[in-house]
Amino acid sequence: MADHYIGVDLGGTNIKVGLFDSQMKLVSNTSVPTGSEMAPENVVERIVAAGRELLSDAKLSDADVAAIGIGTPGPADYPAGLIIRSTNMPKFNNTPLRGMIASGLGGRPAILENDANVACWGEFTMGAGRGITDMIFMTLGTGIGGGVVCNGELVRGIGGNAAELGHVIIHPGGRLCNCGQRGCVEAYGSANSTAARATEAIQATPAGHDSSLKAVLAKHGHLSSKDVYQHAENGDPLAREITEGTAEALALMCVNMLHTTEPGCVVFSGGMIAAGDALLSRIKHYFNEHVWNLKEEPLEICFATLGEDTGIIGAASLAKHALETGRISR
Amino acid sequence: MADHYIGVDLGGTNIKVGLFDSQMKLVSNTSVPTGSEMAPENVVERIVAAGRELLSDAKLSDADVAAIGIGTPGPADYPAGLIIRSTNMPKFNNTPLRGMIASGLGGRPAILENDANVACWGEFTMGAGRGITDMIFMTLGTGIGGGVVCNGELVRGIGGNAAELGHVIIHPGGRLCNCGQRGCVEAYGSANSTAARATEAIQATPAGHDSSLKAVLAKHGHLSSKDVYQHAENGDPLAREITEGTAEALALMCVNMLHTTEPGCVVFSGGMIAAGDALLSRIKHYFNEHVWNLKEEPLEICFATLGEDTGIIGAASLAKHALETGRISR
Repeated sequence: MADHYIGVDLGGTNIKVGLFDSQMKLVSNTSVPTGSEMAPENVVERIVAAGRELLSDAKLSDADVAAIGIGTPGPADYPAGLIIRSTNMPKFNNTPLRGMIASGLGGRPAILENDANVACWGEFTMGAGRGITDMIFMTLGTGIGGGVVCNGELVRGIGGNAAELGHVIIHPGGRLCNCGQRGCVEAYGSANSTAARATEAIQATPAGHDSSLKAVLAKHGHLSSKDVYQHAENGDPLAREITEGTAEALALMCVNMLHTTEPGCVVFSGGMIAAGDALLSRIKHYFNEHVWNLKEEPLEICFATLGEDTGIIGAASLAKHALETGRISR
Repeated sequence: MADHYIGVDLGGTNIKVGLFDSQMKLVSNTSVPTGSEMAPENVVERIVAAGRELLSDAKLSDADVAAIGIGTPGPADYPAGLIIRSTNMPKFNNTPLRGMIASGLGGRPAILENDANVACWGEFTMGAGRGITDMIFMTLGTGIGGGVVCNGELVRGIGGNAAELGHVIIHPGGRLCNCGQRGCVEAYGSANSTAARATEAIQATPAGHDSSLKAVLAKHGHLSSKDVYQHAENGDPLAREITEGTAEALALMCVNMLHTTEPGCVVFSGGMIAAGDALLSRIKHYFNEHVWNLKEEPLEICFATLGEDTGIIGAASLAKHALETGRISR
């Protein structure tokens, strides 16, 4: 009976594949290297082989798969199932990834979606956003990825490029972002920009010369956001100033998203949430400082709960939802 | 046959009521003074009488009404059909407006919605947003009202307070807004804030002493946004600076909404759009200046087209949609 789901998380380093039952309980999962230099056919072969292995171990076949969900970064034409190109996989060019994976797994229905949307959907259905109808998701890593759920559905926009939340401008005329805009939240609130702002401050301001981060920078030639949070925790004033700026940028986003889609919660994910309460409590502090006083806002600001399985959980959950709502059909 | 719709636009000064056929063609409409000092029962009486008159003139009865849409400002519990209180109608306190109007009109199904959402829905279905799936709506008046349509549906949020777009912060730490926040787009891009910024600049800056607006302020004791746009058109540098600030604030909102819900168009409405191309072309200019260069953005920025009938059109159209999608039932 076709009541199982396969979730695929195709990243630049690893392919994660998970098999889920009809109740979205994980049956088994696996991870294989992407082999990102390979041709699309070979990468797909690895995905299909991993899927088949999980099915076979569970004594299931293609026919037991209701649908397949695939999450991967763009640029892509997601509705068409097409990877336009890939930063990490140079041989992917207008690759019909969805169709190739589906063909390899018995022609089962499949859906391709942006990795941030997939992670958002995972948290929405199975993680921190369980039980609410409206959610904002932001992943704090190299950049800031986003997801928006309104009334129980992912917001995709007219071209599938909604929820590029990292590029909401919070400081007009401010820091230059990789995207060409100035003042994007990504230029203040991402892990990379936290490290970059600390580096710049050490190099450019008198306070930088007294910072305990200066020695770290001298030794390693670069800083990480982890360094900055560690030194902030240890009381370094410059590191504190930088992490306050990070929290304030993310808090401003919370205020702005509240007034745009009125979510029940804003869920932060990604490497930088390892900073824990030193990050979360300060975002909440600045949210309360910046938000209006017309009424008490019940917005919950929290961290993602699914960890590194969010990609396969979200992809499988999205496949199930797509089938149930007729976005894809058996 | 119950295939007509009644749209009610309950404002502080006038009640507008329109009767529409099954194709949303206006059969007839009327406007009566609100009598805002009266008790809710009396205001409702006027609404019901106006509706009955339109029906009777068209040789129709209650039974020909499929549904009634009502737009009015909050704070309200819209899903419950309840006006919590009203700035303009002091005797409205926890008034079950939807039920009262429905009862008066033969118990036909009715929906109560925020006036900005109603106007947004009108433009989306019958005006500037026709034919697209995702739209942002902003009305530029005393403040800034907003509406967000994603994938063909109004975004209402967890408490019915989504799309408070005037309170998206674009200049952190900037001008104080009536809501208690600093730097809201409403504090820069509304008609009132345009006039207020001009007034402040005349009073506080050296440039103000050379401005042609100074005499207007001295004569009338206040400025309007119309004054500011008129003097900008006539070449007054200070007036120009102010209107550029207005356009830039609204352009930043366009960028931020693009990256949040990726609408096909942003529709501006309200009194200040009388400024015409002096406003619209400058919003487009600043949008292009601030938006990323990763890809060409096909976002259309335009003015509303329905004029003062937008309230009754939107309300009737929303009633039809609510019936068709099961939000309300016969």
